[in-house]
Amino acid sequence: MKSLEEKILKEGTVLPGNILKVASFLNHQLDVDFIMEMGKEIARIFKGEKITKILTVETSGIAIAMGAAAQMHLPVVFAKKHKSGNLSGDMYKTVVHSYTHGVDYNIVVSCDFLSGDDKVLIIDDFLANGKALIGLIDIVNQAGAEVVGCSCAIEKGFQGGGDFLRAKGIRVESLAIVESMSDDSLTFRSM
Amino acid sequence: MKSLEEKILKEGTVLPGNILKVASFLNHQLDVDFIMEMGKEIARIFKGEKITKILTVETSGIAIAMGAAAQMHLPVVFAKKHKSGNLSGDMYKTVVHSYTHGVDYNIVVSCDFLSGDDKVLIIDDFLANGKALIGLIDIVNQAGAEVVGCSCAIEKGFQGGGDFLRAKGIRVESLAIVESMSDDSLTFRSM
Repeated sequence: MKSLEEKILKEGTVLPGNILKVASFLNHQLDVDFIMEMGKEIARIFKGEKITKILTVETSGIAIAMGAAAQMHLPVVFAKKHKSGNLSGDMYKTVVHSYTHGVDYNIVVSCDFLSGDDKVLIIDDFLANGKALIGLIDIVNQAGAEVVGCSCAIEKGFQGGGDFLRAKGIRVESLAIVESMSDDSLTFRSM
Repeated sequence: MKSLEEKILKEGTVLPGNILKVASFLNHQLDVDFIMEMGKEIARIFKGEKITKILTVETSGIAIAMGAAAQMHLPVVFAKKHKSGNLSGDMYKTVVHSYTHGVDYNIVVSCDFLSGDDKVLIIDDFLANGKALIGLIDIVNQAGAEVVGCSCAIEKGFQGGGDFLRAKGIRVESLAIVESMSDDSLTFRSM
């Protein structure tokens, strides 16, 4: 998505530890009109697929999942990062390692909101080593549901998670793939 | 908002500790079409006001803030609940007590995303004792910006936070106000 690449070049900052900061439009401030455009693009890519539900993980995945869901008229389920007092009942659980924060955390989804009948599109803001998507795929599998595909706003191609999942036969569609980045340059994979 | 009251009656559950669980459409699964309708209602209520930015707090506030922002074509800033590795630079900070989880936590907003020129609409999913809104108002004040008003999906009127803020002259518009609730009954304030 050309406009996303341009926005990353204009507003993104590379921080130490291969972190791409896009706080001005995706991770702290949300450029909602632009996120709705990204949602439209995801809806276009997956047009014709039978999808019953969008799955994401809190926090930063929620906005782009909402953008796509608003176009596709689908519900979103967001996995929660810890067991909350508000989450009663049976839950699907898995462990995810956060590259950004350097810690393991549990993600949980109530069994009420994913079932064997669901055809699930998994959406997240970033795709790096793929650990978050692998965790979400595990949760869909626990529910006996089907993963139709995954879509991320920004894939860091050089961290390999997207290609690892593609090699396993999972459809992974990222709106922009950063092939390399450093303090003073950033290149995208041609798509 | 009549349709929200009906949805709360149909899908909400009262948990011990005065917790109203609406995980099926607002706090875990998101009924995105319905949230977009709630956003439309917030846009209608604040039509004519000069607003430059919507402020909310992660996690559950993001969806309804997105719904309103999509209608109003405004950016959303979501306050973060702890200092993250991805949040560099100067920040506005305040402490909020969570009624649901029984703990104090810090919320922070980067100084990059709120300035003295901003006219801010604060949006959240729930309004109970008002601590989250008071924290967000504090952050807007730290930025020297103006609070145009606050809007919440569900206010628990019997916990007093909304009326406390109204008595201070702040415009607080909730889409549904629960006046009383128990295991087997739930009444709304007439609006």
